[in-house]
Amino acid sequence: MPILKGKDILHGNQFTRKDVEAILKTASEFEKELKKKDALPLLKGKILATLFYEPSTRTRLSFEAAIQRLGGGVIGMGSVESSSVAKGETLVDTIRTVSQYADVIVLRHPRTGSAREAADSTPIPVINAGDGAGQHPTQALLDVYTIHKEIGSLKNLTISLVGDLKYGRTVHALVELLSLFKAKIYLVSPGLLRMPGEIVFGLKGKGIEVVETEDMVKAANASQILYMTRIQKERFADLSEYERLKGSFILNGAFLNNLKKKITILHPLPRVDEIHPEVDAYPGAAYFRQMRNGVFVRMALLAMIFGKR
Amino acid sequence: MPILKGKDILHGNQFTRKDVEAILKTASEFEKELKKKDALPLLKGKILATLFYEPSTRTRLSFEAAIQRLGGGVIGMGSVESSSVAKGETLVDTIRTVSQYADVIVLRHPRTGSAREAADSTPIPVINAGDGAGQHPTQALLDVYTIHKEIGSLKNLTISLVGDLKYGRTVHALVELLSLFKAKIYLVSPGLLRMPGEIVFGLKGKGIEVVETEDMVKAANASQILYMTRIQKERFADLSEYERLKGSFILNGAFLNNLKKKITILHPLPRVDEIHPEVDAYPGAAYFRQMRNGVFVRMALLAMIFGKR
Amino acid sequence: MPILKGKDILHGNQFTRKDVEAILKTASEFEKELKKKDALPLLKGKILATLFYEPSTRTRLSFEAAIQRLGGGVIGMGSVESSSVAKGETLVDTIRTVSQYADVIVLRHPRTGSAREAADSTPIPVINAGDGAGQHPTQALLDVYTIHKEIGSLKNLTISLVGDLKYGRTVHALVELLSLFKAKIYLVSPGLLRMPGEIVFGLKGKGIEVVETEDMVKAANASQILYMTRIQKERFADLSEYERLKGSFILNGAFLNNLKKKITILHPLPRVDEIHPEVDAYPGAAYFRQMRNGVFVRMALLAMIFGKR
Repeated sequence: MPILKGKDILHGNQFTRKDVEAILKTASEFEKELKKKDALPLLKGKILATLFYEPSTRTRLSFEAAIQRLGGGVIGMGSVESSSVAKGETLVDTIRTVSQYADVIVLRHPRTGSAREAADSTPIPVINAGDGAGQHPTQALLDVYTIHKEIGSLKNLTISLVGDLKYGRTVHALVELLSLFKAKIYLVSPGLLRMPGEIVFGLKGKGIEVVETEDMVKAANASQILYMTRIQKERFADLSEYERLKGSFILNGAFLNNLKKKITILHPLPRVDEIHPEVDAYPGAAYFRQMRNGVFVRMALLAMIFGKR
Repeated sequence: MPILKGKDILHGNQFTRKDVEAILKTASEFEKELKKKDALPLLKGKILATLFYEPSTRTRLSFEAAIQRLGGGVIGMGSVESSSVAKGETLVDTIRTVSQYADVIVLRHPRTGSAREAADSTPIPVINAGDGAGQHPTQALLDVYTIHKEIGSLKNLTISLVGDLKYGRTVHALVELLSLFKAKIYLVSPGLLRMPGEIVFGLKGKGIEVVETEDMVKAANASQILYMTRIQKERFADLSEYERLKGSFILNGAFLNNLKKKITILHPLPRVDEIHPEVDAYPGAAYFRQMRNGVFVRMALLAMIFGKR
Repeated sequence: MPILKGKDILHGNQFTRKDVEAILKTASEFEKELKKKDALPLLKGKILATLFYEPSTRTRLSFEAAIQRLGGGVIGMGSVESSSVAKGETLVDTIRTVSQYADVIVLRHPRTGSAREAADSTPIPVINAGDGAGQHPTQALLDVYTIHKEIGSLKNLTISLVGDLKYGRTVHALVELLSLFKAKIYLVSPGLLRMPGEIVFGLKGKGIEVVETEDMVKAANASQILYMTRIQKERFADLSEYERLKGSFILNGAFLNNLKKKITILHPLPRVDEIHPEVDAYPGAAYFRQMRNGVFVRMALLAMIFGKR
């Protein structure tokens, strides 16, 4: 019974534990099959449209690679400046238009809630690739896929989320998925960038143990996974505030040397300077493997949306 | 006998009535076949190049979807700023260059006559996707395809064309096609944006009944079809003139409630505010269906240009 | 034994004479096969990523056409402004990221040496599509392919390279390849834009006869091939200097009429005014054919990199 067939992918909280497990299983199968062959033409003739109202490289490229490895094609809106948006078209009209050409839409948009609005405007599936400070569920799925691969399990994890937890949509979606499994979560951020209270409240309500702290050393020493995030310049009205905060939570060789044991390091990327390049050679540095996993997970989602898995 | 094989698609007046009927027939067949399968790989290995010197979403995406659903590939110039145009290359040189890489070129360019100039520079087929205030023949073909589907026939139509009839290349190409069939055409526009005199003269010469008016209610009540167009900001040197005129010909629920009978509403989109969103639920609102039809019509044209239909 | 399998394509000097001959042979076979069929699906499922940090049309489109004619797909970074680069990501991180999604990367970047840096950051092959004033080896390969087709041989050529020989990466890579065969090379440029001394020195060391001159007539009369290049505005800090120099080496009908015999004319394009359009009809004007050859040569390189030839 195809559990995601025809569904939108909008929010981390839409998945049951069983859904997540099915997605990871499919992604894992695809990863294995792609070692043997270059393409899995399950979605021949299907067309994926990318609508990115904000800068992005990795998410867009990852989806474009995923649909093409499944035999499908891509149409892309290109930059906002060279599109109908410049003629004053509403998001709803653009979505309805693109729905006439494509079989699935991948949307990134600066406004929280825009993905839901888009999904409500069209019968074809919409995948939220980031809506403002809202959600980014496919990133969260590839994160848990990576954790599962690196750690071997999703059960009873101890994880530190570090950096901008207020505006970081990636971590917002990730904690939704983590909360489906038993976990202890350290939220490590400057006071100004703490995880929104309602999310913390929701986690605790689900029986997740949450520790909010500014002490990255202590959190890391208690964790199996260190999930770093970028403090995004573009979220700050006051740039001096940004300059003051950005250096607060930096991971480098010295930091790792002082840890009691090996840790797995994730980051949604791009990084600026929150992870020093010297960390790249550390065996637990999983952030580039994490990106490759994104292709397998998105292939799994696409195949499942079209009822092919 | 393949009637369009190797031909350029430049101007609404290049088609005979028989051509139009053959295109619509092929488009209709493709539409039916695509209900049964995702792709019709008639043009495997063929490459379509998109050269858009002006903002566009729907025309470009529609062509990209069309060639890919036929099994072909796409190469695209991207925005003008990031291309050789920025190095001072002429249109003719760009066209000759792209001709070395692609099998067909789709061109949008701000200058009237540019599509003809492009076609004269290359042996491969050029499809005009809008040349300034000139022509946009594939839009006109999808318009008549939509009219045929919605009304059931192209014979003895009564149609109102509303809005910017002076600069609206869509309506310029459409009246060329309509004039192949018997029709009564209401031209509804502000005085400053009337259909160019030579076009009106040409229509009358072909025995088409033409009524020029500013009374949209009267025209709509006499018509089966209301073809709305956007009054394009970018065509105005004087923005205050734009502000004064843009509200003149607006379609909303109240207008439709006052009509004597149901009417079919078309619009090339994007709209700004000339059709209120409340109209979208009206059964005769065909403008989103119209866009989907664009894919079938462009598939038909491409297949015919390559002699595959 | 597949000679280029898994290799980066970075610099004209990486190829032996045997390599060049094998590439030209494969390109020639592909050219013949494409006359019989539209596609050669040797690289089905392979994904090529284009990363262009500088404006380009022809190189990017040529690679996109090449991989698609081989059955593969494309993912593209788009313009630098709408990508992660705008978020402050380093080239190395971007390359590592894209490596997770693609099977081969084509890079154009304004900094000399960037292609080497990129290749050192990733296990997948990197193709240098121009690194500042450095190299552009695939252009050089298509140039020698064109020379071979037009002249019938690569042995004992006499060739004039004209224009900006200082910053022109195309000619830098080309002389590397020419030096594998016996040749006499006229370097025709204004004093300010002479070929870098170390390149001239290297050529002479390999037994190539080099003549540096500002006399284009004399050089052309002594040559079988006239390789024109654009004097690139963007290379000049002082625009008045550009204005003074750009007219110095212009090819037009009068110039050709005064030559003693027919000559083969190449140009990497785009041209601005260094070749007058009246020259296009001259039988020896091979610069548009040259571009088409680029697709065959890039197909050959891609097939060989993936061990399919």
